[in-house]
Amino acid sequence: MKSEMPEILVVGAGAVGTFYGAKLASAGAKVTLLCRSDYDVVKENGIEVKSIDGDLHFKPSRVIRKASECGAPPDFVLVALKYLPQLIDTAEIIRAAIGPDTSIFHIQNGIEIEKETALAFPNNEILSAVAFICVTRTAPGFLHHSDYGRLVVGRYPGGSSEKAELLKNLFNKSGVECAITDDIMKTRFLKLVWNVPFNAISVLGNHADTRSMLENKLSCELSAQLMEEVCGISEAYGRKFPDDTIENYMVYTRKMKPYKTSMLVDFEAGRPMEVEAILGNLVRMADEKKLDIPRIRTLYGLLSLADRKADK
Amino acid sequence: MKSEMPEILVVGAGAVGTFYGAKLASAGAKVTLLCRSDYDVVKENGIEVKSIDGDLHFKPSRVIRKASECGAPPDFVLVALKYLPQLIDTAEIIRAAIGPDTSIFHIQNGIEIEKETALAFPNNEILSAVAFICVTRTAPGFLHHSDYGRLVVGRYPGGSSEKAELLKNLFNKSGVECAITDDIMKTRFLKLVWNVPFNAISVLGNHADTRSMLENKLSCELSAQLMEEVCGISEAYGRKFPDDTIENYMVYTRKMKPYKTSMLVDFEAGRPMEVEAILGNLVRMADEKKLDIPRIRTLYGLLSLADRKADK
Repeated sequence: MKSEMPEILVVGAGAVGTFYGAKLASAGAKVTLLCRSDYDVVKENGIEVKSIDGDLHFKPSRVIRKASECGAPPDFVLVALKYLPQLIDTAEIIRAAIGPDTSIFHIQNGIEIEKETALAFPNNEILSAVAFICVTRTAPGFLHHSDYGRLVVGRYPGGSSEKAELLKNLFNKSGVECAITDDIMKTRFLKLVWNVPFNAISVLGNHADTRSMLENKLSCELSAQLMEEVCGISEAYGRKFPDDTIENYMVYTRKMKPYKTSMLVDFEAGRPMEVEAILGNLVRMADEKKLDIPRIRTLYGLLSLADRKADK
Repeated sequence: MKSEMPEILVVGAGAVGTFYGAKLASAGAKVTLLCRSDYDVVKENGIEVKSIDGDLHFKPSRVIRKASECGAPPDFVLVALKYLPQLIDTAEIIRAAIGPDTSIFHIQNGIEIEKETALAFPNNEILSAVAFICVTRTAPGFLHHSDYGRLVVGRYPGGSSEKAELLKNLFNKSGVECAITDDIMKTRFLKLVWNVPFNAISVLGNHADTRSMLENKLSCELSAQLMEEVCGISEAYGRKFPDDTIENYMVYTRKMKPYKTSMLVDFEAGRPMEVEAILGNLVRMADEKKLDIPRIRTLYGLLSLADRKADK
């Protein structure tokens, strides 16, 4: 650490990256933002965050267009790009900013989304977080944080980390609830137990919200069977969830207000969906263990086809 | 038979019913048309058939609104309604026209679509046909027959029938190629081997035509796996297809011009899809034999959900 307060480069100026970047800056970190499409607006005005936890204005210490403009390597590179490995080479995007002591910190959906950077930077610490948050970029330079915000942070592929503790302290200071885990993979698996059925079926089931999916007997049954397949993969990787996990998710989802998933939001906007993060990597993990997951594989095939028209 | 030429009541004034009704009339049968939404136009003007085999004008001997107007029971009731058992009670629609010697003749997609009428009229002969045809109702009273036209006719659930021979002769006289089978169920299974993957994936894969489905590696694999599941059900019901059936279908479909399936046409028009004819009855047949067909079942759940918004 070059100073008391860490230097952080945020890569990916979408809602998640700029929200957590803003929070880290509010706790005193020196935050640089790598930003392409919104560069001019953000450089001029910073980012306005309208938040249920109190509005804030985020003026990055610098706004840059590519990692080579970063100068001295930061303590952290926060990767908050959408995970689209077929389109985006994350390692190439961040390479010029990575020094020997830089930790690469992923806040992204899905599973094994850290693998490419772990392979590209084998001597750097990889940190990984799952975000439970509703936040939307409403316009260039404007965010709306409407619900939740909690993070679970751990080292990839597992274990503890002093720098994860440092992030946790910064997040807590900024008002973001942040927990540390020594098994981030388990956290990711548990989130996928929900994300696989609800994200996939929302798109494939003709623009369905969570309530419609649960009210239809056949798609409700399918959701539970998909959850079982995800739990089976998780168990094959040494993470077994309690027997009531699926039932608890069903009860919880029934109580939620009808919710439109992030995958459906992307689909309706004609944007590429996170098919590889949520299904593709999971299918490959199942392949390695020779697991039979016909339902997940069926959804993966259908979504891969459905995704073909996205504006890539 | 009350005369040399049979009396036929056609129920369902869509493209398929009116096309084959027109052909039977052209061969000399006395054809009455039961017609609801297009009643006035058809009663006044009959039906204009623009056909690759030669245009023709079809003036039904009578146009009626309900079966009770039929008078003396006809020799045949040709059922060419869409198979939507959740919405349409076919037995009730035709009951008033069924006499002791009336044969009920289904020209419909799917499998076990004859079951309800067979149960409702246990003493009547049930005939069943699979149509290989491209024909569209372009406006009330107007049909466009653009390709194919062949029929395969048999007795349900199996066996031979003199009245099927009579239909065959009429169709052949009218220029329609018509073959007789003593195992119509096998014909239906074979057609489903194609219809299950291509109809379902066309809707679920974001408005995909056959070429898009085959160009995407994952959905192409899925198509073949679905075909295997259909073949497995067929085999459990005593109809085993040759080993090259799936490969032959794939080769044939690759050679076709990109084709938009009937299920996708209905979906895009906001009309109910034939989910029960093509998937639901098949799933129930697999259930009876305790077969594991996870991929077909997944499609059934998704399509059942996707169908919920149709104008029913």
